[in-house]
Amino acid sequence: MLGTGGGGNTYLAGLDLRRVLGPDGAVAILSPGELGDHDWGPIISGMGAPTVGIERVPTAGRFGRLVRAAERTEGRPADFVAIGEIGGANALRPLCAAAESGLPIVDADPMGRAFPELQMCTYMVAGVAPQPLVLNDGKGVEAILTAVPDSLTAERYGRALTWGMGGSAGLALGKVSGAQVRALGIPGTLSLALSVGREMVRARARKRPTMEALMSVVPHARHLFTGKVVDVARRTAAGFARGTIALEGLAAHRGGRLRIDFQNEYLVARLEDGRDGALCTVPDLLVLLEHESGRAVGTELLRYGLRLEVLALPAPYELRTPAMLAVVGPQAFGYDLEYRPLPGDLLARPEPDAAQAVAPRRERAPGTTFV
Amino acid sequence: MLGTGGGGNTYLAGLDLRRVLGPDGAVAILSPGELGDHDWGPIISGMGAPTVGIERVPTAGRFGRLVRAAERTEGRPADFVAIGEIGGANALRPLCAAAESGLPIVDADPMGRAFPELQMCTYMVAGVAPQPLVLNDGKGVEAILTAVPDSLTAERYGRALTWGMGGSAGLALGKVSGAQVRALGIPGTLSLALSVGREMVRARARKRPTMEALMSVVPHARHLFTGKVVDVARRTAAGFARGTIALEGLAAHRGGRLRIDFQNEYLVARLEDGRDGALCTVPDLLVLLEHESGRAVGTELLRYGLRLEVLALPAPYELRTPAMLAVVGPQAFGYDLEYRPLPGDLLARPEPDAAQAVAPRRERAPGTTFV
Repeated sequence: MLGTGGGGNTYLAGLDLRRVLGPDGAVAILSPGELGDHDWGPIISGMGAPTVGIERVPTAGRFGRLVRAAERTEGRPADFVAIGEIGGANALRPLCAAAESGLPIVDADPMGRAFPELQMCTYMVAGVAPQPLVLNDGKGVEAILTAVPDSLTAERYGRALTWGMGGSAGLALGKVSGAQVRALGIPGTLSLALSVGREMVRARARKRPTMEALMSVVPHARHLFTGKVVDVARRTAAGFARGTIALEGLAAHRGGRLRIDFQNEYLVARLEDGRDGALCTVPDLLVLLEHESGRAVGTELLRYGLRLEVLALPAPYELRTPAMLAVVGPQAFGYDLEYRPLPGDLLARPEPDAAQAVAPRRERAPGTTFV
Repeated sequence: MLGTGGGGNTYLAGLDLRRVLGPDGAVAILSPGELGDHDWGPIISGMGAPTVGIERVPTAGRFGRLVRAAERTEGRPADFVAIGEIGGANALRPLCAAAESGLPIVDADPMGRAFPELQMCTYMVAGVAPQPLVLNDGKGVEAILTAVPDSLTAERYGRALTWGMGGSAGLALGKVSGAQVRALGIPGTLSLALSVGREMVRARARKRPTMEALMSVVPHARHLFTGKVVDVARRTAAGFARGTIALEGLAAHRGGRLRIDFQNEYLVARLEDGRDGALCTVPDLLVLLEHESGRAVGTELLRYGLRLEVLALPAPYELRTPAMLAVVGPQAFGYDLEYRPLPGDLLARPEPDAAQAVAPRRERAPGTTFV
């Protein structure tokens, strides 16, 4: 759900995590407040195009190896695993890394969803260095890049190497300290993903609509459209799955037509009736649920004839600062569209203004360097 | 000349080497026989498309940094610098690395010319591991890849990362011992390049045709064609400069038309008169000299209207074994052509059969692993 179409298909990653955990395995989840200021953890995820990831069976030990490579580069053992992206398979890969390394995982991430590019996260926007930077393939090849000056270079070099590795790589994109997770992370996103999952499973068991289950966890979720996919234009190129789908309205939306653009993740949903603007743009989350099964549909699974419910979820307020919108707003993706935030926040917590008043970290200027 | 169109433009690389050496600088050149069996040296070159390399000013210290990275990875200081490719700018970059590291360079290389891909050399074909594998950009970013299983993977991953780095990278592709240089290297190719250069400079000073100067150093060089470029089809993609040129015959070749294909380097020259076969194919060397200046023309400098002398030089016999032809023969580049060797050898030395009789290393089966 939080992958908003991307982050990688969860089926194979889920099997991999089950295998790593075994029947009695567990990963300790720490809240950011439980970390020592100087504790550190590598930021773990996968990199690549979901259309490729779904073709590749995960390799045993791949994400744990990233942690060990980061520890070697740093010259000291890590204290925790940090999540790089809470959407799709990338919500599960840091759990594999934690289970394989015997480390706890922190209940926070720097996106609150999935985004296609490495610089699109609160850690990198705040100036956390992409160091250590480790990529690996499924066969044991490991690449360690040093002196990478910024996250845009990490994105460019990492994307190219990922493409050379066949389109999918394991990634450690720098490290964060406990203090940095508290100052910059979006807290509670792993718990949110777990809650969404539990409610969905419960709803399916009771044959209740999963859309309602999602809305029970994210009260500000909004139903946008019901429709059938009548066109999919897709290409997998330069490390991304890019394209556009067209939906023909069904039920209450009969006669309407919705277009959704994506780059690994869904970016913008627009009605084709000449109305100005968009129903939803990045960084707000577009969630496409398959009408029958209620399952979230990733961009790699889009095909003609799918009946979909289209929902929009408000982005966490950490993504709505000017510094973050410059990197993850619609204009950062080349759209001549203003970002008009959906009301509310992704997480059940005090409203942004209230939070700002009580949380001194919100006063820290965006772009401040913590390196 | 030995670049056969590729290996990178020598102008900027030459300026860089002059700068590194300064007015009194020198690099010690060792013959393979002077190396201890267990001495070792990283194999140094650049990687990328010549069309990109010519746009990039060399960065101070780049090639010396490759040596230091290889030494760090190996955990011991290197004894010499090994040349990865004797053609074009790649003949000069190992000299920069040697000057910057204060190491001697060995008078041998594994190609006797330039080739577009990393697996196309005697070291890799004989099973030398691409380890340590280091790439760097011009800004200090360094990538160290470990557990790369073979040279084809090194080529694929290295090419992708080079492309991400903007199309040109410094490269340390594994290491060789003194014993390996003696067993697998093509001896005397640095001396050959120096002799060719000296004769060319001398010829130009005396306003003599440089074609004759080249032929005085490589007696088996053969003049194929005189013509004017009437068509250049070129694209720079996936890390290579690829294309075809057409030459319209001049002087004795009036009425003839020659097509030359290239992938960074010139690969195949064919007359367009319906005659079967090719005048020259890889691994034999195609050398295009500008008619007026007598300078060798790289694939990055091809343009309409250039008047060219086309010469062919026989490949060194080390490239003519079945194991090497499987990797550098015309069929390895996708041509349905047999390799018909030009008579003679690139180097002034005993004929292959005689050499085989006196040199026990020729009895070692191609493909033997020395790792």
